[in-house]
Amino acid sequence: MVFHYGRHPCRRERDPPSMNAQPRVPAIVIRRRPSGLPQPDDLGLAEVEVPELADGDVRVAVLDLSLDPYLRSTLAGRHLGDAPLAIGDVVPGRAIGRVVASRAADVPDGTLVLAETGWRAEAVIPAKAATPVRVPEGIPASAALGAFGMPGLTAYAAVVRQLVPRPGETVVVGSATGGVGSVAGAMLRHRGARTVAIVGDDDKAADATQRLGYAAAVVRGRDRWEAALAAACPDGIDGYLHMGDMPTLHTAVSLLAPGARVSLCGLMDQYNDGPPTMLPVGAVMMARAVVHGMVVYDHGDLAGAQHEEVAALIADGTLTLHEERHVGLASAPAAFARLMAGHNRGKVVVTVGS
Amino acid sequence: MVFHYGRHPCRRERDPPSMNAQPRVPAIVIRRRPSGLPQPDDLGLAEVEVPELADGDVRVAVLDLSLDPYLRSTLAGRHLGDAPLAIGDVVPGRAIGRVVASRAADVPDGTLVLAETGWRAEAVIPAKAATPVRVPEGIPASAALGAFGMPGLTAYAAVVRQLVPRPGETVVVGSATGGVGSVAGAMLRHRGARTVAIVGDDDKAADATQRLGYAAAVVRGRDRWEAALAAACPDGIDGYLHMGDMPTLHTAVSLLAPGARVSLCGLMDQYNDGPPTMLPVGAVMMARAVVHGMVVYDHGDLAGAQHEEVAALIADGTLTLHEERHVGLASAPAAFARLMAGHNRGKVVVTVGS
Repeated sequence: MVFHYGRHPCRRERDPPSMNAQPRVPAIVIRRRPSGLPQPDDLGLAEVEVPELADGDVRVAVLDLSLDPYLRSTLAGRHLGDAPLAIGDVVPGRAIGRVVASRAADVPDGTLVLAETGWRAEAVIPAKAATPVRVPEGIPASAALGAFGMPGLTAYAAVVRQLVPRPGETVVVGSATGGVGSVAGAMLRHRGARTVAIVGDDDKAADATQRLGYAAAVVRGRDRWEAALAAACPDGIDGYLHMGDMPTLHTAVSLLAPGARVSLCGLMDQYNDGPPTMLPVGAVMMARAVVHGMVVYDHGDLAGAQHEEVAALIADGTLTLHEERHVGLASAPAAFARLMAGHNRGKVVVTVGS
Repeated sequence: MVFHYGRHPCRRERDPPSMNAQPRVPAIVIRRRPSGLPQPDDLGLAEVEVPELADGDVRVAVLDLSLDPYLRSTLAGRHLGDAPLAIGDVVPGRAIGRVVASRAADVPDGTLVLAETGWRAEAVIPAKAATPVRVPEGIPASAALGAFGMPGLTAYAAVVRQLVPRPGETVVVGSATGGVGSVAGAMLRHRGARTVAIVGDDDKAADATQRLGYAAAVVRGRDRWEAALAAACPDGIDGYLHMGDMPTLHTAVSLLAPGARVSLCGLMDQYNDGPPTMLPVGAVMMARAVVHGMVVYDHGDLAGAQHEEVAALIADGTLTLHEERHVGLASAPAAFARLMAGHNRGKVVVTVGS
């Protein structure tokens, strides 16, 4: 098991304060629940206490913080299995960090770990909730948040368990240049599929075809973009990885080839309080399609195989790491708003420490 | 291959008439395209010519005519692969009939066949489009239109290829007492599933639990029926065979258990010109469900196994044949309107001859 998807420690600061004043560190807390698209000032900088270490705990200094769309649901209290957050709570989130104090023999000082730290400079967590980071030589540790991390596992599980592409098939990837999509595209091409990108703007279209290896890219929402997608998929769509809005889903589904597979991987508009995403059933029947709901938590058993494949695809040039980096914890709220508006270019990471 | 799903011969009467006057037989023709729920006077009785037999043709006297919901789409010009029908055309449809004249050595006079005859007393069709009827001793030939026919094959394919029930699972069947549902229920119970019926009225609820073997039945559309369905499925729904309207789909999908399978088998409201049926994607993701489009034409390879199972399930009492019979070709339009309004009780058959 490479990742720990357990409860996050964000609410620790509401524990009764100890008698001795604890050190305080910067953190990003919830100021206001987002309504619709998140705004930067929904979240704000604060100082929170770093609790004392209990037996078995480690203190982790955060290096790279991962920003992910699923957090939008968590902020709204809708994410699978999470208890709702209160105003003033630290924003949850995964990060790469270094252990700077340890009361756990198997995770010593200095260990580079992946952990649910929340958006803060330092976190105290149980050592068993921290996973040592392992990425190949020469690859930045932040890749453990992207291609080697949860987005990469999402992509891998969608490809091998749901889309199951055959050589020569056309597979369309929504949000094609994002954290999941950019990795999925490479994994699909590795299996001989022809990949077509759906993206949000021209810059991303250029990224998709010039940097990331897609055969074609279509900008959603443009005049006659449905016709452009149809033209890019002359034999129909054999596989579709959905991570976009409802009009994109409807357009892609209307072009499914017989026997197509659809992986429902992210519902961007629904995350942002849009109307519930609905799928036209007639098109699914007409195509005899199979539609899968993707929840990455079910696929932890694939992490070993995912790591191997990601390393191999980076090594042979099929997979280009595609990261958008922001610097400083204070930049995280605006970076998250940008992500949720679909303006990010690649997996979004915030440098918190070094 | 047991069934022939080829083009129907309904348009023959528009061929140039031969120089000799041909015998004429009663038929049901389209008077007006249905709008919304079909009305009995959308269709009407007429006389049509029976053409001369060409080499390889047989003339079939229709005994039992099958009425099926998919015909509603054909009448609207929407059914998969069918050319649109014109006003005045004979209504297409499958029937059991007896060969009364043959110019095909392998299908002699007197053979009982299943064929696409259309709604008429006699049809001339290519012998290769007629399938000899084989049902076990003691079972009425009309079962070749139901449990042994296309509805039974639909049920079997949905069960073995899409719902794949495990013992102890709860599987909900929409339109549970109809031509497909009544057979599917038995096949599911045979595999150890607990079956719950969704039906349209109290009479059908009684049929479901007292005659057909469902563990529970819920009448859709009643006050608090969603709560009744939830109560009938305390551990959630592991499999759902959908053949109803959109509110039924939404209710069932909201109760899916993790890993549930959904077979989209019939869209009754959409057939009747209702709004396109839409599926809430969030519920599919939350349940990590797999949703399949079912088109029976893809599953002809299962017909042999289906026949064996249907015979065995009738023999051991698991499957009760459930048929609603109308007498006389002239009764077909009203019977079809009744079927499309969901008022039928079991597989609908019209006795045309004997």
